[in-house]
Amino acid sequence: MATLIECIPNVSEGVRTEVVDAIVNAALSAGRGVTLLDRSSDKDHNRSVLTFLGDGPGLVDAMAALVGKATELIDLRQHKGEHPRLGATDVVPFVPVRGATMKECVALAEELGKRVAEANALPVYLYEEAARSEERRNLANVRKGEFEGLAKKMESPSWAPDFGPARPHESAGAVVIGARAFLVAYNINLGTANLAIADRIAKAIRHLSGGYRYAKAMGVALTDRGQVQVSINMTNFEKTPLHRVFETVLSEATRHGVAVVGSEIVGLVPQGALFAAAEHYLRLEAPPEPQVLETKLLEMSLSGRLARSE
Amino acid sequence: MATLIECIPNVSEGVRTEVVDAIVNAALSAGRGVTLLDRSSDKDHNRSVLTFLGDGPGLVDAMAALVGKATELIDLRQHKGEHPRLGATDVVPFVPVRGATMKECVALAEELGKRVAEANALPVYLYEEAARSEERRNLANVRKGEFEGLAKKMESPSWAPDFGPARPHESAGAVVIGARAFLVAYNINLGTANLAIADRIAKAIRHLSGGYRYAKAMGVALTDRGQVQVSINMTNFEKTPLHRVFETVLSEATRHGVAVVGSEIVGLVPQGALFAAAEHYLRLEAPPEPQVLETKLLEMSLSGRLARSE
Repeated sequence: MATLIECIPNVSEGVRTEVVDAIVNAALSAGRGVTLLDRSSDKDHNRSVLTFLGDGPGLVDAMAALVGKATELIDLRQHKGEHPRLGATDVVPFVPVRGATMKECVALAEELGKRVAEANALPVYLYEEAARSEERRNLANVRKGEFEGLAKKMESPSWAPDFGPARPHESAGAVVIGARAFLVAYNINLGTANLAIADRIAKAIRHLSGGYRYAKAMGVALTDRGQVQVSINMTNFEKTPLHRVFETVLSEATRHGVAVVGSEIVGLVPQGALFAAAEHYLRLEAPPEPQVLETKLLEMSLSGRLARSE
Repeated sequence: MATLIECIPNVSEGVRTEVVDAIVNAALSAGRGVTLLDRSSDKDHNRSVLTFLGDGPGLVDAMAALVGKATELIDLRQHKGEHPRLGATDVVPFVPVRGATMKECVALAEELGKRVAEANALPVYLYEEAARSEERRNLANVRKGEFEGLAKKMESPSWAPDFGPARPHESAGAVVIGARAFLVAYNINLGTANLAIADRIAKAIRHLSGGYRYAKAMGVALTDRGQVQVSINMTNFEKTPLHRVFETVLSEATRHGVAVVGSEIVGLVPQGALFAAAEHYLRLEAPPEPQVLETKLLEMSLSGRLARSE
């Protein structure tokens, strides 16, 4: 199975299209078999969120080139925007999609961190699953004080970078690199306007209050529909699958005499989450993915693209 | 959504690898955006089954080149093999996989038929969904008498070809072109050794005896496992979906006090069949396919490949 990893660099430029173009092109030229899946720039935030897909080595090459180009073209001393940021390349998470483990993504984050620190004399912090201390796990914590407060923050030995020099890059600040799981936003709608029932069911399934380890949930009123919703963040759909959470919500709703009227996935979802549901309910004796025609075609296309660039 | 059509030409050469290579290469060179998904040659049958994927125009170009090359390189007067055959290119079915209708595939079969008849002075018969008379719908019927009996068969006005000359091509015979639905082979295993129960359930779901329109089924003993199986051919998984047939088998098995212990898909399956099951059981408010990350990547890859060849 071809490896598929997602990498979503956030760069501190959302206005000058030609700068974002140059940054994207640097990544695509350097990263063998890397595809740009989505690109979204926000003028108010003065920030662009770029979604790349590829395998590990391709993505590390692409991101090293991207960080280099962003460091060259973005000067945070001139940068204004509503979104908090620490660097020209602000944050680079690696996300396993298929055929890759979290451990591999942590190793990619470390490799990229080492490379961009050396090539650009840039301090690098590792966050989330790649964090080397608990207080660096949370991105907001690492970013606190922003670019403007970074020199002062780095004076404290507890904020020595994981790679690179012990003071900010003059114009590019620092970069935060890490690994995290794919998030699936999944909502289940109930045939009642009683928000207390959605709240109780949310409590039943979420990790915080005794539920599934990789589920966060809360009740939400859908006023226009006269319904309520159990709004769920699935933080690891492989270990806590959608269909299991759905069945628990169904069971809890039934206990309250309430119908489950529908569910919705918000944003992108890896096919594995849906195939797992089909496998469960059809009682398939083996995971169906290797037999899926489009997957076979995608595998050929991914490996073919790699071969062409060699 | 990028169109995806499967085309599975069967050519009458299963021994000389270099001939099959030349035929495959002719197709791939001529067909923009066409991929060879699978290739399987059988020496005893002296026949190769080639599975191509692409969009309509790409596949017609590829198949026109393939028929031309097979006509040039294969002489049926010298051909021996166990499998019945009428021509150098024996049969070419177009199969809609996604984003294409049966009607469009029938039109492709007609377009290809016209082209190869003119380019190669080759008689062409249209079969299955592309057949213009009931007696040509069944491939075995069209192929009866094989290459050796073709000249005699064509003397009858009822076997005038749909395109091309009224007598066989001297060395390449005739070609049978058509359109048919994707077949999904789907088996459901029961926790009993009683074959009569599998037979009764097969009768309940199959079209022939009052069941689903696009299901064929029979009971099979799985002697090694001490179980029986409802063995199903799903002839149109979009109109008669797997999950609906599964639920009916479950209901009928329950009525007999028998458990459904598992199910299996044999061979390839389009992802739509599995996404439909996930959509049904998770009560999704919209078909999930447009949100699937790998599908988005495949769409980009398919359209990207087309763009590169322009």
